[in-house]
Amino acid sequence: MSSDRLIYLPLGGAGEIGMNAYVYGYGPQGKERLILVDLGVTFSDMETSPGVDLIFPDMSWLIANKDRLDAIFITHGHEDHVGAVGQFWEKLGAPVYARAFTANLARHKMRDQGLPDDVVTTIGAWPEVTQAGPFSVGVLPMSHSIPESGALVIDSPAGRVIHTGDFKLDETPIVGEPFDPDLWASVSKNGVKALVCDSTNVFSPHAGRSEASVGPEIEKLVAAAPNMVAATTFASNVARVKTLAEAGERAGRSICLMGRAMRRMIEAAIETGVLDSFPKVVSPEDARALPRENLMLLVTGSQGERRAATAQLARGKHNGMTLKEGDLFLFSSKTIPGNEKGVFRIINQLSERGVDVVDDTGGLYHVSGHANRPDLERLQDIVNPDMVIPMHGEHRHLREHAKLSEAKGRASVVAVNGTMLDLTGAAPKVTEFVETGRTYLDGTVKIGALDGVVRDRIRMALNGHVMVNVILDEDDEPLGEAWVEVMGLPVQGSSNAPLADILEADLTQFLGRAGAKTLADDDKLEEGLRRIARNSCKDEIGKKPECTVIISRLS
Amino acid sequence: MSSDRLIYLPLGGAGEIGMNAYVYGYGPQGKERLILVDLGVTFSDMETSPGVDLIFPDMSWLIANKDRLDAIFITHGHEDHVGAVGQFWEKLGAPVYARAFTANLARHKMRDQGLPDDVVTTIGAWPEVTQAGPFSVGVLPMSHSIPESGALVIDSPAGRVIHTGDFKLDETPIVGEPFDPDLWASVSKNGVKALVCDSTNVFSPHAGRSEASVGPEIEKLVAAAPNMVAATTFASNVARVKTLAEAGERAGRSICLMGRAMRRMIEAAIETGVLDSFPKVVSPEDARALPRENLMLLVTGSQGERRAATAQLARGKHNGMTLKEGDLFLFSSKTIPGNEKGVFRIINQLSERGVDVVDDTGGLYHVSGHANRPDLERLQDIVNPDMVIPMHGEHRHLREHAKLSEAKGRASVVAVNGTMLDLTGAAPKVTEFVETGRTYLDGTVKIGALDGVVRDRIRMALNGHVMVNVILDEDDEPLGEAWVEVMGLPVQGSSNAPLADILEADLTQFLGRAGAKTLADDDKLEEGLRRIARNSCKDEIGKKPECTVIISRLS
Repeated sequence: MSSDRLIYLPLGGAGEIGMNAYVYGYGPQGKERLILVDLGVTFSDMETSPGVDLIFPDMSWLIANKDRLDAIFITHGHEDHVGAVGQFWEKLGAPVYARAFTANLARHKMRDQGLPDDVVTTIGAWPEVTQAGPFSVGVLPMSHSIPESGALVIDSPAGRVIHTGDFKLDETPIVGEPFDPDLWASVSKNGVKALVCDSTNVFSPHAGRSEASVGPEIEKLVAAAPNMVAATTFASNVARVKTLAEAGERAGRSICLMGRAMRRMIEAAIETGVLDSFPKVVSPEDARALPRENLMLLVTGSQGERRAATAQLARGKHNGMTLKEGDLFLFSSKTIPGNEKGVFRIINQLSERGVDVVDDTGGLYHVSGHANRPDLERLQDIVNPDMVIPMHGEHRHLREHAKLSEAKGRASVVAVNGTMLDLTGAAPKVTEFVETGRTYLDGTVKIGALDGVVRDRIRMALNGHVMVNVILDEDDEPLGEAWVEVMGLPVQGSSNAPLADILEADLTQFLGRAGAKTLADDDKLEEGLRRIARNSCKDEIGKKPECTVIISRLS
Repeated sequence: MSSDRLIYLPLGGAGEIGMNAYVYGYGPQGKERLILVDLGVTFSDMETSPGVDLIFPDMSWLIANKDRLDAIFITHGHEDHVGAVGQFWEKLGAPVYARAFTANLARHKMRDQGLPDDVVTTIGAWPEVTQAGPFSVGVLPMSHSIPESGALVIDSPAGRVIHTGDFKLDETPIVGEPFDPDLWASVSKNGVKALVCDSTNVFSPHAGRSEASVGPEIEKLVAAAPNMVAATTFASNVARVKTLAEAGERAGRSICLMGRAMRRMIEAAIETGVLDSFPKVVSPEDARALPRENLMLLVTGSQGERRAATAQLARGKHNGMTLKEGDLFLFSSKTIPGNEKGVFRIINQLSERGVDVVDDTGGLYHVSGHANRPDLERLQDIVNPDMVIPMHGEHRHLREHAKLSEAKGRASVVAVNGTMLDLTGAAPKVTEFVETGRTYLDGTVKIGALDGVVRDRIRMALNGHVMVNVILDEDDEPLGEAWVEVMGLPVQGSSNAPLADILEADLTQFLGRAGAKTLADDDKLEEGLRRIARNSCKDEIGKKPECTVIISRLS
């Protein structure tokens, strides 16, 4: 019996929706040859990661084992799957494989970091396969909300694993290959060990609807609009952008793409042949010369992003265009949980301008890109794997998906980031826990999520910041009074005098009372000053701020 | 013809959902006698108001006109209607009127601020009326998600206005008076000038469901649960708490109330006779001695509040109770937009413990407390007012509600906070704009939202904070080197040396180069030091932090 084993190790994406990174390995324990599937980002928020530019999975484990890494495969071009490729490629150093459209976007990511883009190799769809160490990997076309999403057929001596990537079962996806149940059945017919499967919509009880279902509704809406129409969706949803543009064209409107991502995605889709036709577009300059009722703007920023075209139009102007009373704005999108406030802020701003806003509330103008519960069951039935490993979901999604799979008689397990599974046997076996976490890109620096940097920012935001400055002479005697600066605190509190004055008086009094031992000891003195400053603040303004003490000694 | 006029002025709640405060006035222009309807709070968030404890409407206009204020009426006991009564009462000084349950809560608010609670007068329901200056005000019972919500019938020589407060049309509300269409018709039969109306659910297309509809579903769910059951809802939703408790009792479970608000609301409901029966409850201590399958916990924290009982149970333990594999947790509540991340965090934590979570996704275990679109139409048809003034909504709600009303042939207008309307004529007329805004309670201090305090906190959170300390001698010569402290910034950047060291070197070099004129001028020196510090940070770590410069001069 071979001692070789097949392992699965999510480093990102299992226990969250975002920053996907899944490792597969085959070989003797601890010496498995590895491949990485996806290398994505997730986005910061004010609540947990203020000031952070991007969030990556902690790739330390894989970097430490980079000599065992044979290839990186990218399933599709969404940021949470491809966004970190440029950021980690130098430290991983393995070739990157993806289909044409995804590879086009991955090369942009490499160039953005000043890296050579020829490490990204374009591969074709199944039955073409790529050898990577002990693995043979093919891309099985799958429908999703971006062109050329692919499931990976990962063969090794331990058997066949199918890693779905993100998907829905759409047989009329407008752009790209439809879901082909016969192809999936044929790939699965000799047995599939494990289906590693998207869990995003496991709580959605009804079968998903096709991308083709929104076209007629959008067309009716646009045709009936009396004035200018603007619409937003994820720029990478090329099928939707096409549907929107064609609805505009049929209503006699010129199409204007606004926002860099919108133009870049359409370019990439045309360059790679994913998109064979698209209505003629006009530039914002030319658009301004056209009658408003003959225009349709397709704009970025469906999630309320403050700098995107939608937000700018809501605030007033973007590229010289403004929205007016009686215009129509369509959100052909779903608001991702956490973005509601930002999106509603924009809808209210549009409302203030008299713009009629239509969103997905009625379920007419958007369909999800992920497989719903009955779709997950259907795919399981087609593939009939020995086991189902839920991925791409928060814990609640993974658990529900595992329960669903077990109810269908298949082995399953909830494996969150860092859980190494041995897939060699008949059921998944937890074999090791690897330390994982999040890496923040902050400006140009990568920092660990637990380094304390962001914790300090959050504390300053919640508590404000007091800075105490004291100068001592050669004999450890205070030179003058304590000096206080405050930031992010009320100017005055209960004494009706400036807070800084009150603090300076209290601190100076403390200095006057402090013994020689305290004055000679930086740590003691700092501790005493901090205590006084925080307690005086508590008395004055009812809160204890962060406090930085600077002691200068003349010597 | 009289020169007296009837005015309406929202100071809070119109253009947002939260911090309700509506002024009505009658009399000669600028000398109208005033009443205030509701005085509520709204809640802070990390994105816009980090560290802020509570948010109030800016009451400056009313405080400046307090000699004209005759009474404060509170429609119901939700925090966004009664929460600021204790905070502003001293500055307004008018008597407070409310029905018994609401008055009970209002008195708590007064006592919380160390104020006399006898300024709150309990009033009865219509046809009882209270005289307040030129106004005669009665409370018309209305169903909502809290007992004794009331619409106000506000009579003045200019006619009758009905201010709905928050409401739904529920003829079987479990607790409190049902909606009584005949009573409403009789109150309206001699003509209603204006219906000032809740707009929250104007986008909900189907008629609302009764509170009574959730009982049977909850009962089935609880009866089928094999292990411990815990459920959360808004504590003030006494009807729901009762429904949950009765479902538990019928399933042979002892009821344990967890969280201060949960106990206080039930107490208030019993004290004021709103609740005439409630299952026997056991203390957490006694509950711990009972078999888990015979227990039902009713807990606070349905919105993901970090310190509430639900969050504590999700993290591990509350009052000695823990949730385990196979327990059931029911969210009998809707997640308010903006709270999704916090609620999902808790659901994921519960999932990690193996707890089965049921929420409102299927629409079975919660109904809204607000009137949906067809309900708004129905009430308009019953009251048949000359005009409809939408309130209690964001701009998008107000606008939609105004459009709905106009479509039904009634005069309407979108009047956001600060918009004074003259209601004397046949249609509402905008007559003045009053400066309004938000007041933050920060610790114990009230600050204006635009005072810059919170802006500085947000900047520190986004950018980090650098403190530069420089000492100059009597001759304006730098004494030693510049000293830098950083907070909320990466320890090191591109130079692979500590950021503070790099900054100190750059700043000391600047000091060495600086001319006597700069060194002698605090403003110039500060500006120069700040520029160097920020630019060096930009080079090192790719971001420009907030910067505080402290220049000490020995003299």
